[in-house]
Amino acid sequence: MKIKCVLFDIDDVLYDASLQVEMARLNAIRAMIEAGLPSDVENAYRVLKEIVKEYGTDYSKHFDKLLEQLGLRWDPRVIAAGVVAYRETNVAYLRPYPDTITTLLKLRDLGYRLGAVSDGRTVKQWQKLISLGLQHFFQYVLISEELRSETIGPELFKTALDKLNLQPGEVAFIGKRLNPDILNANRTGIISIRMRRGESRSEEAKNDEMKPKYEIDKLSGILKIVEEIEKTRP
Amino acid sequence: MKIKCVLFDIDDVLYDASLQVEMARLNAIRAMIEAGLPSDVENAYRVLKEIVKEYGTDYSKHFDKLLEQLGLRWDPRVIAAGVVAYRETNVAYLRPYPDTITTLLKLRDLGYRLGAVSDGRTVKQWQKLISLGLQHFFQYVLISEELRSETIGPELFKTALDKLNLQPGEVAFIGKRLNPDILNANRTGIISIRMRRGESRSEEAKNDEMKPKYEIDKLSGILKIVEEIEKTRP
Repeated sequence: MKIKCVLFDIDDVLYDASLQVEMARLNAIRAMIEAGLPSDVENAYRVLKEIVKEYGTDYSKHFDKLLEQLGLRWDPRVIAAGVVAYRETNVAYLRPYPDTITTLLKLRDLGYRLGAVSDGRTVKQWQKLISLGLQHFFQYVLISEELRSETIGPELFKTALDKLNLQPGEVAFIGKRLNPDILNANRTGIISIRMRRGESRSEEAKNDEMKPKYEIDKLSGILKIVEEIEKTRP
Repeated sequence: MKIKCVLFDIDDVLYDASLQVEMARLNAIRAMIEAGLPSDVENAYRVLKEIVKEYGTDYSKHFDKLLEQLGLRWDPRVIAAGVVAYRETNVAYLRPYPDTITTLLKLRDLGYRLGAVSDGRTVKQWQKLISLGLQHFFQYVLISEELRSETIGPELFKTALDKLNLQPGEVAFIGKRLNPDILNANRTGIISIRMRRGESRSEEAKNDEMKPKYEIDKLSGILKIVEEIEKTRP
């Protein structure tokens, strides 16, 4: 049985989403300080992180809340400075890893079908693929929101296998989180490859089910893995 | 009595907001067609304009509705292509008119205080001033949302006069709409200057109260007007 398809998570797997969000927050805070926010970067960054944790990433008033929690009165000039810097930084850091495109090209030319399977909101994740310039690599894209889920659950992999008309052993998945991403790939029987980057890089498997079959720390590492797998299979 | 302060509306007065939104919509539709939308540009543009009219500019699902109204099924790839192109175009066209900065510099150096008075949402309008690179010109900014209003009403001018501590005759306002912008400036006694550009350029005054005291078709025209006014005043 040969590998037929390679599925990629998007954030931290195709591009450095952790760095993007960190830089966007830092630059937003720097811009707000420049516009008159009386705080230092470290303190404001810490408070902002707590706000995002509490209210979620889709909340639209993070900077309003930041001013509130710093005990300051609402200031549209300061908030707008933060929003503009945040957005500009977000766009600037929405770039594939240096080896993303070369790796996808090689996999494509080796005859593998490529897909993206990710948690998140469907249109938003598609926007990322388009802005990254990667949308034409992927013959199949499935985002958790389409199954009314917020995470990469077992049903996401089952739906993908169904749609691709493939057996679990014919599919490899590159994800970043041990739980639930790698765990559910393992449970579905998909070949699990962990990308050890970004916020989840220091996670360690709590049990055997969470252990990835393979581990890489840059995307091009996948080329050796598929080669290895193909060799061991008749 | 001398003019002490010049107040500017933002959209279509400091930059070409009408062109921006037209280009953003057109490029969004072109990108959606490229991504597979089976429609021609003219038809999709017309339907999109109707959707914006019906659901308002702040509605977040214009492109979802577009597919629906064209009788097509929801396609996140097509919608995301539209969103990405729309945003990129929006950023690209958020540029001051060629004479905006030189005009503001001259007015500043002539000793006039400059302000922005506009309808819209406060943080969003501030974002525009910042992205346009104009925020440091304006010593006073008042957006209608701060007074819980969606338009440039009489209370906006009254609040501005109060805050600036000036008489109506000491203030000039450049706006684009005859009603309510110019009308309310006239009613407050502020020197009204109409910028005949953008979507409202073909409007004609229905009565004397709506007639602007002066009219310009580019921002630099204001320099001659203030010079003229100063000459006629003792």
